[in-house]
Amino acid sequence: MSEFLSVDAFRDALHAIGERQYHDLHPFHQQLHGGQLEKGQIQAWALNRFYYQVSIPRKDLTIMSRMDDPKLRRAWMQRVLDHDGLNDHGQPDEGKVGGIERWLRLTDGLGLDRDYVISLEGILPATRYAVDAYVNFVRDHSLLEAVASSLTELFAPSIHRERIAGFEKNYAFANDSTLSYFRKRLDEAPRDVEFGLNYVLTNARTAEQQRQCLRALRFKTELLWAQLDALHHAYVTPNLIPPGAFVPADMRPTEYRR
Amino acid sequence: MSEFLSVDAFRDALHAIGERQYHDLHPFHQQLHGGQLEKGQIQAWALNRFYYQVSIPRKDLTIMSRMDDPKLRRAWMQRVLDHDGLNDHGQPDEGKVGGIERWLRLTDGLGLDRDYVISLEGILPATRYAVDAYVNFVRDHSLLEAVASSLTELFAPSIHRERIAGFEKNYAFANDSTLSYFRKRLDEAPRDVEFGLNYVLTNARTAEQQRQCLRALRFKTELLWAQLDALHHAYVTPNLIPPGAFVPADMRPTEYRR
Repeated sequence: MSEFLSVDAFRDALHAIGERQYHDLHPFHQQLHGGQLEKGQIQAWALNRFYYQVSIPRKDLTIMSRMDDPKLRRAWMQRVLDHDGLNDHGQPDEGKVGGIERWLRLTDGLGLDRDYVISLEGILPATRYAVDAYVNFVRDHSLLEAVASSLTELFAPSIHRERIAGFEKNYAFANDSTLSYFRKRLDEAPRDVEFGLNYVLTNARTAEQQRQCLRALRFKTELLWAQLDALHHAYVTPNLIPPGAFVPADMRPTEYRR
Repeated sequence: MSEFLSVDAFRDALHAIGERQYHDLHPFHQQLHGGQLEKGQIQAWALNRFYYQVSIPRKDLTIMSRMDDPKLRRAWMQRVLDHDGLNDHGQPDEGKVGGIERWLRLTDGLGLDRDYVISLEGILPATRYAVDAYVNFVRDHSLLEAVASSLTELFAPSIHRERIAGFEKNYAFANDSTLSYFRKRLDEAPRDVEFGLNYVLTNARTAEQQRQCLRALRFKTELLWAQLDALHHAYVTPNLIPPGAFVPADMRPTEYRR
């Protein structure tokens, strides 16, 4: 078994997971950012990713439900307030637009009906399974592992910058409204991850706990990856849409015959 | 909203789900049965499907843990005994080979190392999410919906017959040992599903309960389908193996580059 790592070596090991398997490496993202996807394919991505977005507060509240320390809960609460668009008193605030609303401005800009998006009716079953696996993971594993699984935020700013630049360059739907989610996350993610990273570096006190954290982060990268695999299979190559899932206006439903 | 259906109409509606979206329609199965897959692709299928096999008793015991009626539990217990290779006294029995062991004889015959198969190390994350979604479904939904989700067994004998014939015709690894799982299920599944179908037809007493049963069966077909989507994407088209997943001896790991 491996040895207990120094803080620097442990931090490096966490970063190495992103280098190897963060979903910026996935062909779907490379095509998305490179301007190679049609509108219907981007709609499918935004529609499916909406289920991830609405599940993030459930995930964060599940994590918080496992925290004994009120100070810790208070720090983590910021994520839920940001996502739901609430001010520091937990109230709706005209000046504050939440992450879920920002995502809906993206789906609006892509021409998707809001009620349809919110209904989740057209998402790929595989999206649901992967996202639910995340919520279940933070419920069923240690608090330390749950926090470690959030550390993909270490790698998020660079993919968001790439996405903003790629969308602005390549797609007519790119504007302040449709890009606002990603711009906002450029501010929020570094603050969130600084807290989570510090927590993990401080609280992984044995080699076994360090390994658990590394596994948790790998688990998280896998579920992000699996969502793109499903999108890629359904809407790009080989473009086989599962029965019942969203069919973009520029595609026909896939016919499956015995 | 829809009306309460007669028993015959309800049974037809259940069957219609299989007609529309049972996974015998999936291109991966058509290629598998038609002799178009290489050994490494079939290994990947058997390896991943093993996680489904070992999870079935967990699923059945979860269902049983929700049954108040000892007679019902006793009837359902047969599935667990069959899968685990136990006799009617719940004991190992030399004369009885369980479903999990039969599946391992298939992976043996395909040249996979048993310890590797059992470790689950190489399975696709998407396989894990879909299978776990099944176990979670029967825990989180009504007993009626849990039983209804098992009714894909209505459609199983025909796919098993197709598989046995296709394997015998097309693949050198086909023999009594590697096919024994499927041959055994030809006997077991009709008995199991007769019980489950009768339960559902009798206990769905409102239009809403009928709709829940239809949704549960559709949910189950979706998760079977999603497993094949993931296999197809990783090992057939476009053949992009996720980082860390099983790489057959006749394939190279997929290289992902920024």
